[in-house]
Parts: sequence; structure tokens; C-alpha cells
Amino acid sequence: MSKGILVVVSGFSGAGKGTVIHRLLEKYDEYALSVSVTTRQPRPGEQEGREYFFRTREEFEKLIREDALIEYAQYVDNYYGTPRSYVEEHLHAGRNVILEIEIQGAMKIKKKIPEALLIFVTPPSVEELEKRLTGRGTETPEVIAGRLERAGEEAKGMEQYDYILVNDEVEDCVDSLHEIIASEHKRVSRNRDFISEIQRQARILKKD
Amino acid sequence: MSKGILVVVSGFSGAGKGTVIHRLLEKYDEYALSVSVTTRQPRPGEQEGREYFFRTREEFEKLIREDALIEYAQYVDNYYGTPRSYVEEHLHAGRNVILEIEIQGAMKIKKKIPEALLIFVTPPSVEELEKRLTGRGTETPEVIAGRLERAGEEAKGMEQYDYILVNDEVEDCVDSLHEIIASEHKRVSRNRDFISEIQRQARILKKD
Repeated sequence: MSKGILVVVSGFSGAGKGTVIHRLLEKYDEYALSVSVTTRQPRPGEQEGREYFFRTREEFEKLIREDALIEYAQYVDNYYGTPRSYVEEHLHAGRNVILEIEIQGAMKIKKKIPEALLIFVTPPSVEELEKRLTGRGTETPEVIAGRLERAGEEAKGMEQYDYILVNDEVEDCVDSLHEIIASEHKRVSRNRDFISEIQRQARILKKD
Repeated sequence: MSKGILVVVSGFSGAGKGTVIHRLLEKYDEYALSVSVTTRQPRPGEQEGREYFFRTREEFEKLIREDALIEYAQYVDNYYGTPRSYVEEHLHAGRNVILEIEIQGAMKIKKKIPEALLIFVTPPSVEELEKRLTGRGTETPEVIAGRLERAGEEAKGMEQYDYILVNDEVEDCVDSLHEIIASEHKRVSRNRDFISEIQRQARILKKD
């Protein structure tokens, strides 16, 4: 019952994933955030190992060749990937690792690590999603339209996830996420060793 | 997200299932306890519809013929069964129905109602189980030996369940049980309608 769970969190842009994950890490001890590797340039204020691990193209391609990434993808000339060692160290230390990633990446993770837990975050309705995106007032109508368009695409993949998490109130959503992960730790499939041990003890008992 | 879940709770005799279920019903509103039908005679203090629904052998066999029982079994000349209508009414009213039943019955339920949730309650160790059974001081050594013997049998079926719930502290165990059930309500497989609706709305969005 001690190994951590790799938790993949996806969801509509505007669903509030970032806020929920941030609060989860703040509120509970047993989580670590997976930090991605990228070849893109650091933006002002970004720190090595906090927002990303920044690597050159050559270094990144070496990571690919060494199978040091659980998954990676290329967007607009830049690579983005999930470093395997970082994730595995935390899992072995008993921490659940949270990985915020879009659907294609999530599917790759599920294929490589079937015991990963996939959670899709959504507002209560698409109407609410529109409201939140418009209400921010920080994005241009084109950016909002682009995000809504992408939401249409992302919605198609919702069934591929394990849980649907409705983000209505942030604190409730954070607690629900924590409860889902805590409950998953009690799944039979995640407790094979404990069950074997109880069965072994129970067998001895019968012979007495 | 409104239909209740049928929750089957099994576990070692002495694991404290009864206490945990009693507290769950006391503490949270959204649960109903499934009451079994039996042909055995009521014992002093037992009430119709509280401990059991008491029926004659003829009445019980009519229930079997009418497929009015989700499952039934015969022990020592008496029938015991789970009435379908009672369970379904509560589920449709959005209440989770708790059914305390041994493993054979649990397997029959799983076969007939695949979306039922199966939870196995165990003490932290078999040593602890022995302690609890002996510590009660109310049972004869023969009864205790019989229960431990049965625990050896029951342990074999643990893998057939969905979750393993360790009952160390009753209140923690009750809250964990509640969290497991609340989390299960967020499973993708239990939210097909909600997902379809979000996908429908998101499709409309794309066409705008």
C-alpha cells in the first residue's frame, strides 16, 4: 500500500485544472508534480526544474534514444516530454505524481503505464466553460474561439479516462480529486501483496 | 450522476463490517440498507422489515419463480434472499444501497449486476483478527475456531472484490468507505449520459 500512483490530469482549457492541481499540492503532502522537459526557450520568470527542465535539441534527442522519457511530443518546432526517472523516484518514495497533460500524451502514458490513473476535469457545462473563458477578459476573441474549438476536439476523448471530475467549486474539486486518489489506493488491483500476505496468514490459521 | 450504487460489503467475521455499516448509515444520508427476505422464524426483538422480511416457504418460492430476488441461497433448511424491488427503488431514488452478504452471494450479485461495487473488509492482519475474535470473550473457543477456519476460506475470494478496506479505526474506515463510494460515482463508466451531453454541447460549439 506504499507505492504512489501516477495521476494524469487532462481537461478543457478553462476548466481550472491548473488551480485545482496547485491547491492539491498545497493542501496535501503526498503529491509531487511532474515537471516536463522541453527544448523551448525559458520565458521571463521561468525556473529550471520548476516550470520545465530546459534542454537543447541534442540533449532532448539523447533522452529519447536512452528511453529516458515516458512520453514526448513535438509542438511547433519544440519537444516536450515527461522524464521517467523523476516520476519513478517519486512513485517509489510513496508520493502520487500529478502529470498535467493533454489527451494524446495521456493516451501514450496509459499505454506504457496501465496502472496510471486518468482524470478528466470539466466545468459543469459547456455554457459554463464559455462563461469562464470569456469572463477572464484577458484573452482576445480569437484565442477564446480557438480554445472552444479545441474543447470540441478534447471532448471526444473523455471516455478514455477513468474519472470525470466536475470543477464547480475549486475546494470541493480538490477534495474530490484527493478522495479519488486515496480510494484508488484501496483497489484490489493495487493491493496484490497485501492480499497475498493476508491469504498466506489465513492458510496457516486453517492448519492450526 | 443521480442513480445510486449497489454496494456489496463482505469480509471476515470479526472484521467489524456490521459496526462500519451501522456508522455509515448513521453518519451520511445517501445510504439505504438492503433488508433480506428469509423463511426462518423471527427471533425475540427482531422486527419485520428491519432485520428481515419474514416469509413462509411458499411465499419465498413464489418470489423465486417471479424473479423478484436478485440472489438467494439456502442455509440449514432456510432460504435467504435479496428483494429486487426494494433495492431498485432506493437506487432509482439516488440512494446507495448497502448489502452485507458473504462471498457466494456477492459473486451472484456481480454476475447479475456488473455495476455493483464489491468491497471486502479486513482487519490489518490475521493476527489482529484472532485478537478481536478472542478478545470479545463472548464466544466459545469452538465458535472462534470455526470463524477463523471460515476466514481461511473467505480469504481465497478477496481478489474477486473491487476494493479492500482495512478496518483499523472504525471512524476512518467509515469515512474511507464513504469516499470510495463517492469517488465511484465519478467513474467515467457511471457518467455516460453526462459525458454524452457535454460532447453534444461541445460539438454545437465547434460549428458556431
